[in-house]
Amino acid sequence: MTMTEEMTPAYARHVGERLRNIRRQQGLSLQAVEEQSGREFKASVLGAYERGERIISVLRLQRLAHLYGVPVDQLLPRIGDGQSPRGQARSR
Amino acid sequence: MTMTEEMTPAYARHVGERLRNIRRQQGLSLQAVEEQSGREFKASVLGAYERGERIISVLRLQRLAHLYGVPVDQLLPRIGDGQSPRGQARSR
Repeated sequence: MTMTEEMTPAYARHVGERLRNIRRQQGLSLQAVEEQSGREFKASVLGAYERGERIISVLRLQRLAHLYGVPVDQLLPRIGDGQSPRGQARSR
Repeated sequence: MTMTEEMTPAYARHVGERLRNIRRQQGLSLQAVEEQSGREFKASVLGAYERGERIISVLRLQRLAHLYGVPVDQLLPRIGDGQSPRGQARSR
């Protein structure tokens, strides 16, 4: 019963779209992010995240949000945007 | 030059502490979270996250924040709390 839903291409793509949108809003190229991050974020790897080919780790997500100057939530798709496997919000 | 810093025990521990604090603030046991999540978050796995033995994925982090009704940022340690490998904030 181990689920591999963390790796769903759909989710990775949604995250990637957000990452790309924020970067573009900031007028940064992939190369510029690589440089500004002191080569922590290689352009090729960041590009793979943005295309949904790789999923970013929690630590790197936090660092990237910090670099972009936005809250982490802004780099993530909204739950309920059609990609949440469990469907809607749980009322509690 | 592939860095494995995503897996640093220190970061995993910091994340784990936040996860545990929020859960306790909500007065929930590990078992209660397991039930409320429809068994998506097994008590044993959530416990491993909280002890810093495992690092949560971005998708599960987002789901857990949703379940707890808090922003994702609240489940993450503050950058600069002594565990940020790159040190201080980049001014931009």
